[in-house]
Amino acid sequence: MITKHDLNPNLLRAEYAVRGPIVQRAQKLEAQGRKIIYCNIGNPQALKQKPLTYFRQVLALLEYPELLKKPEIATTFPRDLVERAKKILELHPHGTGAYSQSPGVPFIRQAVADFIARRDGIPADQDHIVLTDGASKGAQAVLTALIRGNGHGFMIPIPQYPLYSATIALFGGRQIGYFLDEERRWQLDEHILNESIERARREGTRPVGIVVINPGNPTGAVLSLENVRMVIGFARRNGLSIIADEVYQENVYDKGEQFYSFARVMHEMGERTVPLFSLHSVSKGFLGECGHRGGYLEFRNIPQDVLGEFIKLQSISLCANLVGQFATYLMVAPPEPGDESYPVFQKEKSAVLSSLKRKAEILGEGIQKIEGMHLDIPRGAMYAFVRFELPPERGVVISEMAPEERRAYEAKRDTEYCMALLEQTGICVVPGSGFGQKAGTLHFRTTFLPPQDEIEDFVTQLRTFHEQYVRELEEV
Amino acid sequence: MITKHDLNPNLLRAEYAVRGPIVQRAQKLEAQGRKIIYCNIGNPQALKQKPLTYFRQVLALLEYPELLKKPEIATTFPRDLVERAKKILELHPHGTGAYSQSPGVPFIRQAVADFIARRDGIPADQDHIVLTDGASKGAQAVLTALIRGNGHGFMIPIPQYPLYSATIALFGGRQIGYFLDEERRWQLDEHILNESIERARREGTRPVGIVVINPGNPTGAVLSLENVRMVIGFARRNGLSIIADEVYQENVYDKGEQFYSFARVMHEMGERTVPLFSLHSVSKGFLGECGHRGGYLEFRNIPQDVLGEFIKLQSISLCANLVGQFATYLMVAPPEPGDESYPVFQKEKSAVLSSLKRKAEILGEGIQKIEGMHLDIPRGAMYAFVRFELPPERGVVISEMAPEERRAYEAKRDTEYCMALLEQTGICVVPGSGFGQKAGTLHFRTTFLPPQDEIEDFVTQLRTFHEQYVRELEEV
Repeated sequence: MITKHDLNPNLLRAEYAVRGPIVQRAQKLEAQGRKIIYCNIGNPQALKQKPLTYFRQVLALLEYPELLKKPEIATTFPRDLVERAKKILELHPHGTGAYSQSPGVPFIRQAVADFIARRDGIPADQDHIVLTDGASKGAQAVLTALIRGNGHGFMIPIPQYPLYSATIALFGGRQIGYFLDEERRWQLDEHILNESIERARREGTRPVGIVVINPGNPTGAVLSLENVRMVIGFARRNGLSIIADEVYQENVYDKGEQFYSFARVMHEMGERTVPLFSLHSVSKGFLGECGHRGGYLEFRNIPQDVLGEFIKLQSISLCANLVGQFATYLMVAPPEPGDESYPVFQKEKSAVLSSLKRKAEILGEGIQKIEGMHLDIPRGAMYAFVRFELPPERGVVISEMAPEERRAYEAKRDTEYCMALLEQTGICVVPGSGFGQKAGTLHFRTTFLPPQDEIEDFVTQLRTFHEQYVRELEEV
Repeated sequence: MITKHDLNPNLLRAEYAVRGPIVQRAQKLEAQGRKIIYCNIGNPQALKQKPLTYFRQVLALLEYPELLKKPEIATTFPRDLVERAKKILELHPHGTGAYSQSPGVPFIRQAVADFIARRDGIPADQDHIVLTDGASKGAQAVLTALIRGNGHGFMIPIPQYPLYSATIALFGGRQIGYFLDEERRWQLDEHILNESIERARREGTRPVGIVVINPGNPTGAVLSLENVRMVIGFARRNGLSIIADEVYQENVYDKGEQFYSFARVMHEMGERTVPLFSLHSVSKGFLGECGHRGGYLEFRNIPQDVLGEFIKLQSISLCANLVGQFATYLMVAPPEPGDESYPVFQKEKSAVLSSLKRKAEILGEGIQKIEGMHLDIPRGAMYAFVRFELPPERGVVISEMAPEERRAYEAKRDTEYCMALLEQTGICVVPGSGFGQKAGTLHFRTTFLPPQDEIEDFVTQLRTFHEQYVRELEEV
C-alpha cells in the first residue's frame, strides 16, 4: 500500500491556504445545511455576480454553430455577435473541438497583442504570447522553467497569493519573502527588497526572479508608477526576471489610482534586458469567468530559443482549453461603440465595477469602525487584508520566542480566530498566516464579492463576533 | 538577458515528438499554401470528424442559460437535452462561470463513479475521482506526486506516448523502458518486464510505478485479459503503482477484442494493495473533443491522506475548466434509449466508430501491400505504428555501434524519412524514434483519422514515396 512517505516531499511541503482546512470545514457545515458566505476565494460568479451577456452568447454560438443557421437565432442574438461568431469560425474552423497549436490559436494571440498595444501604447508581438488555462498555469510554467534546483529562489511578496509559495515549494525552489509596507498602502519598498535579497544571498540562495502582484492580492493595493519603475531597476541591478501578475488590472476603484503595466513602464524606460513574464486572466476584472480557465502569458526580453522551451513545455499538455482561449479573445476584444451588443455590454460592465467599488467602501468603512481592526478602503483587486488585534494570552511572551516559534504561534492564533468566525457566523475568510504577515501582526483576507446586503451583514456580524472574541480572551 | 542556460535542465531534456520539428515544418509549409495531411496527432475534429450533436447542444445551453427561457429554443433542441441542461444548472447553479471544488463538481464525480460501476460491474466511489483538464493533466499529477527525486523511475512502454517520457524528464525522474512485443501484437511480455526492472535496479534506479496504455498509443493494440492480469501481478510483486492510460477504451474495432479496465481486473482478482491511477478523457473515443480538455483520474487502493495530497495539488491550479467538467459528464452520461436525442446520438456515434474501423482496415491492408512495410490492422485506438525497412547505408555497420550511437543513427534515419515524406507528399507523421523502438527497426506513427478518401490517397502516396526513397538509397 502506498503511504504519504512515498510521495514527492515537495508536494507534502506545499501549502495552499485559500482552499485549506477552514474551507473544508465550511463545505462540511454547508452540507449540513448551514448558510456559508464564501469570502475565502475570488470566485465572483459563485457569489451571484452575473456573467456578461455578450461573452456567453458568443461562446454558446461557438459550442453549437448550427445555431447560426437558424433564422430564429438571428433575432435572439445581437447582429454583431452573430457576425463575430461566424468570423471566429472562419478564422479557426475547428472551433472548440480540436487541439490548437501549442501556444494557442494564432488570431487570438494577435488579438491579445493588439489589446496590449492599445492598452499601453507600445508594440506587442503575437509570437511572444502563449494562451494558458488561467493565469495560474502561466505562473506555474514560468516557475517550472526558471527554478533550476534547490538553491534557486524567487522573491515573493508577503503577504502573497499562495499559488506562488505552493508552486515554488512544489518545484523545489526557495522562497525569498519581501514584506509589503502596510503603512504605505502595501507598496513595495526598495530598502526592504535590498535587505531581503542580501539576506537570501548570505544564506546561500541564488535569486532568479521576483513576483509582483499588481493590483495586489491579498492587499488590494495599486502600485504607483514610481513603485513599478523602482522594481524594474531593482530587477535589472540584481539580474532577476519579473513575473507580473496583472490579473486585477481592470479592478481599480479609486479615482486617484491607475494601473501601470510592467510592459508599458519597461518600454517607456527603454529597458531591454530584464526578462518579463506578464499574466492576465478572464477570471477577474468585470468578467469573473473563473470556471473558463482562460488567460495569457506575455514574454518580453526573452530570446527566441528560450521562448521555444516555453512552447515545448506547453505542448506537453497539448494546449490550453479552447473555450478558455475564445474567452480570452472575448476579453481582449469586447464589443465596441456602434455594435448592437455594446449598450448592454457597457451597462453590465459598469454595474459590476461600480458594485465592487461600492462594496469595497462599505467593507472598508465598516471595518474601520471596529475597535482593534485596521483596513484602508481597498483601491483595487477583490480583497481586503484586514489587520486585527487580540489581547495577549496570559503567560505568553512573544518577544522571547524564536522567529519560527513566533510564526507558528501567530498562525495558530489567526487560524483559531477565523475558524471561530466561521463556526459562529458562517463567514469563511482565510487566516493572514496563509499569505504571510509581519511578526507581531494578525490578519485575515476577505473578498468583497458577496452581494451588497451580505457585505453589510458581514460587517455587522464581524463586529459582534470580534468584540465577543476579544472579551472572552480577556476574561481567561 | 536570460539564456537557455538559465532554464531548468529537466525542461531542456524533455522531448515531445508529437509536436516536434516535423510538425513545425508542416505548419510552415501550410502557411506557404501547401496542403498538409496532419497524421501526427490524435486530433479528430481537426481532421473533419464532426462533434456529436447532443454534446454541443447541452454545452451551448450551459454557456448561455437564457436560451432555456426562450420558447423558440424548445423547438430547436430535443426535449431531454433541455431538461438535462436545466437539471445540471439545478445541481450546479454556478454553471460554467465559477471555480468548482478542487476535485471537481460533486454530481459529475458521482456520474463518473456510476459510469465505472456500470461499465465494469464493480463498486466505484466519487470521492476517489478527480476531474482533470484532459487525461494529460491527470498523468502529470500522478508523476508529480510519485517522483521523489533523481533515483526514482517509472516503467514506460517502448514505443510509448511521449507525454510520459517528457513529464518524467521534467520532474527529474528516470524512465525505465520496457519493450512491447511487436511479434505478439504489441502485448506486454512478463519476461521483458522482469528484465527491464532488474536492469534498472542494477543501475541504481528505484522503480515506483508502471505506465500501461490500453488500447495502445502508438501501437493500436488492445491488451488481453491475461495480459492485464499479468501486469497487476508484476506490479504487486515489485511494489509498483499502476498508471492505466485508458483514454482509447471506446476505440476497439476488432470484434474478437474487448477492453478490460485495470479497475475491473483488479477488483476481480481481489487485489487490494496495488495503487491504481486510471485515466480517461473526452478527447478520444467517439467524441474526439480534444479542445475541451476534459477528463478524470480515478484512484484505487490509495489511502485517504495520500488522496488529500492529490486534491491539494489540484487546488494549487484551483480546478479543471468547468466546460471540460461538463463535457466529462456528458461523456459518462450520454443519451439513453427513449430519449428524444437518442436516435441521433446513436447514429452519430456508430458513424464515427465504424468509419474509424473502416479506415484502420484501409490503412492496414494498404500498407501490408507495400514491400518493406509491416503493420497489423490496428485493433484499437487511433494509430498505426508502421515498421519499414530501408537498405543499409554503404559503409555503415550498425552491429559495431554502441547502443547510444545506434539509437542516434536510427533516429536520424527515421526522422529524415518522415521529413522527406512531408516535403514530397504533405503527409505529416511522427518518426518512431519519438516513441522509442527496438534497435535495428524503423517505424513511424500515423493516425487513421483523416477522411476515408484521404486515407486511400495516403496509402497510394506512401507507396510511391517509399519505393522511390528506397530506390534512391540503393543507388547511392
